[in-house]
Amino acid sequence: MSPARELHLGVNVLSDGMHPAAWRHPAADPLWFTDPAYWIDLAKTAERGTLDALFLADSPSLFQKPNEPLGAPPLALDPIVLLSTLASVTTRLGLIGTVSTSFEEPYNVARRFASLDHLSRGRVAWNVVTSSDPYAWNNFGRAGEAAGQPGRHQRYRRAAEFVDVVRALWDSWDDDAVLADKATGAFGRIGSVNTIDHRGEYFAVDGPLTLPRSPQGHPVLFQAGGSAGGLDLAARYADGVFAAQASLPDAVRYADDLRARTLAHGRPRDAVRIMPGLSFVLGSTEEEAQRRNRELNELSGDGRLAHLAGQLSVDVSELKWDEPLPAWLLDGAESAGGSQGARDIVVNLARREHLTVRQLLDRVITWHRLVVGSPERLADAIEEWFVAGAVDGFNLMPDVFPSGLELFVDHVVPILRDRGLFRREYTHTTLRGHLGLPRVPDRRGDLAKSALLSG
Amino acid sequence: MSPARELHLGVNVLSDGMHPAAWRHPAADPLWFTDPAYWIDLAKTAERGTLDALFLADSPSLFQKPNEPLGAPPLALDPIVLLSTLASVTTRLGLIGTVSTSFEEPYNVARRFASLDHLSRGRVAWNVVTSSDPYAWNNFGRAGEAAGQPGRHQRYRRAAEFVDVVRALWDSWDDDAVLADKATGAFGRIGSVNTIDHRGEYFAVDGPLTLPRSPQGHPVLFQAGGSAGGLDLAARYADGVFAAQASLPDAVRYADDLRARTLAHGRPRDAVRIMPGLSFVLGSTEEEAQRRNRELNELSGDGRLAHLAGQLSVDVSELKWDEPLPAWLLDGAESAGGSQGARDIVVNLARREHLTVRQLLDRVITWHRLVVGSPERLADAIEEWFVAGAVDGFNLMPDVFPSGLELFVDHVVPILRDRGLFRREYTHTTLRGHLGLPRVPDRRGDLAKSALLSG
Repeated sequence: MSPARELHLGVNVLSDGMHPAAWRHPAADPLWFTDPAYWIDLAKTAERGTLDALFLADSPSLFQKPNEPLGAPPLALDPIVLLSTLASVTTRLGLIGTVSTSFEEPYNVARRFASLDHLSRGRVAWNVVTSSDPYAWNNFGRAGEAAGQPGRHQRYRRAAEFVDVVRALWDSWDDDAVLADKATGAFGRIGSVNTIDHRGEYFAVDGPLTLPRSPQGHPVLFQAGGSAGGLDLAARYADGVFAAQASLPDAVRYADDLRARTLAHGRPRDAVRIMPGLSFVLGSTEEEAQRRNRELNELSGDGRLAHLAGQLSVDVSELKWDEPLPAWLLDGAESAGGSQGARDIVVNLARREHLTVRQLLDRVITWHRLVVGSPERLADAIEEWFVAGAVDGFNLMPDVFPSGLELFVDHVVPILRDRGLFRREYTHTTLRGHLGLPRVPDRRGDLAKSALLSG
Repeated sequence: MSPARELHLGVNVLSDGMHPAAWRHPAADPLWFTDPAYWIDLAKTAERGTLDALFLADSPSLFQKPNEPLGAPPLALDPIVLLSTLASVTTRLGLIGTVSTSFEEPYNVARRFASLDHLSRGRVAWNVVTSSDPYAWNNFGRAGEAAGQPGRHQRYRRAAEFVDVVRALWDSWDDDAVLADKATGAFGRIGSVNTIDHRGEYFAVDGPLTLPRSPQGHPVLFQAGGSAGGLDLAARYADGVFAAQASLPDAVRYADDLRARTLAHGRPRDAVRIMPGLSFVLGSTEEEAQRRNRELNELSGDGRLAHLAGQLSVDVSELKWDEPLPAWLLDGAESAGGSQGARDIVVNLARREHLTVRQLLDRVITWHRLVVGSPERLADAIEEWFVAGAVDGFNLMPDVFPSGLELFVDHVVPILRDRGLFRREYTHTTLRGHLGLPRVPDRRGDLAKSALLSG
């Protein structure tokens, strides 16, 4: 491990928090989720903690059956709108937004991220997803077309072409395309703004984009899917992955797999920052943390059980708090290396460590690692996986906002700093800088590199 | 005219300014167009002047032939991203963004504007366009489909259905849908968040939207097209129009036409705020203004002539500075009342007032009224059309940013205030409030109103 290896921390803001009962906690305000003041405060807290970025997950639907009563604050606000609002009230924090390749046009996505990269002076990332949420597909139908979503393979084919188009558009202006010579009246440099003339399986896009290359060259690309298609997309393109692992062996296996694939695509083995989700219930002491955890679990009652049942596609009556998972689930073959489906992650963990349902639910929230305890315990949990080389950092998923994030920034960040694991202040102005990634050169840089490689 | 009638002023920010040579003016910085500090300063200047709104025109293309050298700063930044960035650094200014119905999905557009209405606390408007820019269409092709754009009729059919879907989505949550009862755990009120189940000619959208109704009920709707299809869309839906008139008789005729159509659609005659573009070259004195105008015209040279030739679809050799327009153009039939095409507007003006090309270009920039002169002259020009009842206000198009806007706010706004024509401070917090428009009630309000009308 290189001594220069740096820990990276993002915060994944899911409305009122990761715990299913977050909005009911005394410290939460269930009306916050559309309030600009709430979001601005959160972003400033994250920036105070010198976190790499604020991450917004997304799906363009309520993610539930039609006309089912709302159980909790939804992922309400459009991520790009929200991140753009936060861009002008922060100066260093990275801004990562999820946008699906299934419901958008590549020209619009390329333009929006490039615009926000300019307006944030280089702090933007696009988290590329293909959307498996069936309710989202029902919001983007065409009259006369069959309803429903295409298979994963087809979604990822479209995603790969979509990303190709977006990257070509980001490169449609050379870095020095704007001449702006007042004396002669020559605004653009001749030959420096070019069409892309893309003709593919899904899209036909002429280009060029409407605006100059952005501060980062390309906005950072994140990827979040654990399927083979998602891993391949990550290995080919991504600068970072928002992975999901519930145990260190799984995390090590995932990292080895992704790094091998990255290498196979001709990129450096460590080109992709691996940042799985890390959920936590924190107190300033162990006792406080345990009390907070009990309060939240009591508020959600059997809600966590129902949630797990849904994730495993079993009836809730098959799950007993103090018994193992049903034998037929545990007896299923352990999933192959690359698969990181939500079901496999928890079943693998329960099988390997012989956990009861209660013990399992103390270890994961949905498919993300859960840590309950003191600031020291959480710092240890972060250090363990980082030092083992399984991760480059974590995407933090506090139980309840804003207090969970405030506790982390005030109590865990200082410990990580004292251990020499985390920055004391920002040393860069762009998200690429925070992540230790270079600015992407323009097409002439790529041409120069190609010439070098083939020469 | 009601004594309560209020003047409304927006500012249309077109990169470095409306004048073709704006970016070459000594006071302009041609690199500003992607700089957040520039845009934030402009928005704050507009808010200092208690303007109703900042308006962003848009087309998702460079609006020129492929690989033609760039002549001036383009409309570079995505309007929604830019307005979202400005939302958190302003508190009263309305934010109007142009988005085409031809290149987007209604679910995404509904969600973005509702999100920004929340984050701006009720200051957002959508300017609905259908995009006649042929270069934009080439950025949104589908492999295997014929290239090129559909006819205007088809574009407006899609636009009408698009707006219907967006409005239905904005109404998919009742105003009191969020119960957020921590004690019982009931987050949403049963029956208050509903699908829309739209099945139309173009779209199939289930809904509901991902978020509660926004502060304005519906974001404000603007419309900018002068064709019959555009006028009909405006009369049916719009709260405001960004019209284009070069002379008072044309403006009166347009207003009469639009108000009759609005009435025919069962809406109050004055339901739509009419705000044509008003371009100006201003100085603190008449002499300063004339000097600034000469400087700009000298910088653009024959550029204005070429621009007019393009607009009229004639060869530039057919236009002579000190002669009238070619006779065959002037001999064409005067266009029918509703048509406000770019060509008709300038030909009608030249014919009616017997103008040479030079005189014509002193009266219009593209198809918008141009005023050159002192603050008093500009205030007079505003008052004349407003008092004649032809307009509710103007969408200001300064020659050069930021100085043109600063001159307006510092020198013209005080005159309009002293004449009792314009607000001294904001008296509302939402754009609907500034424009004198009520909040749109939720579907139960509409049901109650329907019951009342039919009862």
